[in-house]
Amino acid sequence: MNSVPDLSALLWPIRPQLEAVNTILRTVLERADEPLRSSLAPLLGAGKRLRPAVVLLIARLYNRQSAPFERLGSALEMLHTATLIHDDVIDQAQLRRGHQTLHTRWPAGPAVLAGDYLLAEAVSTTAALGIPRIVEILSDALRAKCAGEIRQALRREMPTDLRKTYNQTVEAKSASLFAAATEMAGLLAEASDAQVRALRAYGWELGIAFQMVDDILDLTGASAELGKHPGADLQQGLVTLPSLVYLEIAEDATPVRTVLSGKRDAKHVSAAVQAILNSGAVETAFEEASAHLARGRAALGMLPDNSWRNILNELLAFVVQRRS
Amino acid sequence: MNSVPDLSALLWPIRPQLEAVNTILRTVLERADEPLRSSLAPLLGAGKRLRPAVVLLIARLYNRQSAPFERLGSALEMLHTATLIHDDVIDQAQLRRGHQTLHTRWPAGPAVLAGDYLLAEAVSTTAALGIPRIVEILSDALRAKCAGEIRQALRREMPTDLRKTYNQTVEAKSASLFAAATEMAGLLAEASDAQVRALRAYGWELGIAFQMVDDILDLTGASAELGKHPGADLQQGLVTLPSLVYLEIAEDATPVRTVLSGKRDAKHVSAAVQAILNSGAVETAFEEASAHLARGRAALGMLPDNSWRNILNELLAFVVQRRS
Repeated sequence: MNSVPDLSALLWPIRPQLEAVNTILRTVLERADEPLRSSLAPLLGAGKRLRPAVVLLIARLYNRQSAPFERLGSALEMLHTATLIHDDVIDQAQLRRGHQTLHTRWPAGPAVLAGDYLLAEAVSTTAALGIPRIVEILSDALRAKCAGEIRQALRREMPTDLRKTYNQTVEAKSASLFAAATEMAGLLAEASDAQVRALRAYGWELGIAFQMVDDILDLTGASAELGKHPGADLQQGLVTLPSLVYLEIAEDATPVRTVLSGKRDAKHVSAAVQAILNSGAVETAFEEASAHLARGRAALGMLPDNSWRNILNELLAFVVQRRS
Repeated sequence: MNSVPDLSALLWPIRPQLEAVNTILRTVLERADEPLRSSLAPLLGAGKRLRPAVVLLIARLYNRQSAPFERLGSALEMLHTATLIHDDVIDQAQLRRGHQTLHTRWPAGPAVLAGDYLLAEAVSTTAALGIPRIVEILSDALRAKCAGEIRQALRREMPTDLRKTYNQTVEAKSASLFAAATEMAGLLAEASDAQVRALRAYGWELGIAFQMVDDILDLTGASAELGKHPGADLQQGLVTLPSLVYLEIAEDATPVRTVLSGKRDAKHVSAAVQAILNSGAVETAFEEASAHLARGRAALGMLPDNSWRNILNELLAFVVQRRS
């Protein structure tokens, strides 16, 4: 693996705009009553700000005034955080961004409502940009995300086509919202139709690569920094990319099949994790993520050639090479 | 009590437009995958359609083309249904609109996501109207609703000012969304600022009266038609209007205080319901609801004087005099 790019150095040129996003998020917090405010603060205050960063870089790419992009970026962060809150209720997760999840401190009810509250803030902030088409893209992405996650949650048996199912999951979990983010930014920048399509493709590939690497980090222990145990996704019965590749290449896939068929105690999960790590599946998974990085790069080729495009390019590399 | 107005006769003049709303809701259903589609069908297929009706009547009041109002009305019904789905997850309710609630047939996770899915559809449909301000009003109403419900859900002890708390609850549960509906319809009709304010006031009063009567129906047994047992709200520890009035007027309010302090078995609830019914609190509660009816009528006085205004007026009467 190459040396890991430093995200904060990479985003240093847009630090003031990212700070402006934080200021908007603080305004949203200040508008909330207690105890909602204190509960949302650690969630809205953390995170890599990848979605806002991409939007802000697109503003610079087209040399546009930052203010509306800062609002769009903050809306995306609100929407993303809202979906995390609901995901944590659904998965009964204990930790998020290093803090106890909302539903472990509150009953599930208010946690659901807190997610709705942030969704409403995201929509309101997006609507205030004054471009209805952008609101439609945002809500369509949310709809696609929910539809995919419902399909995943209600699946009763191992799907017959694991690869297709995996692709659908990745699209729902990550690609649809990243693609929406870059498409909205392109519209806001008044880019040409062809460039908006290229921006959407870039976001789509970035989102897929991001999720694939998340899947890998679930196994490689670096995921401890994400506040999870190695193999946590597998333990939940989720078919992640390394386990999928393993099922495709292993002669005897028993350790993973055992976990996926329901034996989810620590011993079986640990055996499955070891089997995957020993199989070379992680390396193959990296190659797959890198292929999406290459497709993201190809999409960038359609866009104005300046230093901001280089940063969008390096962001792809960061997403694939990050350790947490 | 006067004879109960017949809602379907009252809304007969806008039956075609209400059918158009149903058609849009069916389109939304058809776009959903199974099993989401079948699960949403009984929820989206039922309901009084009060919010769409008000919006459609406002279109007629100003003699506007119905199509955009039909879309707005359907969006409101989607949003309302989405909040019902989340409320049912939160309250662990068993029945909604005569059917098993979503979360009793599914795990809570997909039920939360199904609510999010419908929220996204509501936002998308509203955004497609092309007026960002209308999306902002919708999302601000959702935000206010969530904030109020979070406050209510996280309350640990009996509030000191019950009346103030009750007013906040009614606003969150019902008034904010009705007021948003009539305000959005006014903007869509390009009514004057003063008339939009009057329309908002009408929706606000209609929403308050609606919720107050819901509270009364919880006690008067007619609520069986709503799929609940008499006193169900009280059993959940909610201070409804009749119990609030009872606490204000009764010399010895022990039966109700006992339930609200946590003794929520059937015997204590039944005793509390009887004590409230015997106290005259229900009649006083009706007078309060009627006062809001009068304020709604006053707001209507600002609007164009035609037969559609009369129907909006009779709708207020229906809301107060309905039996279910």
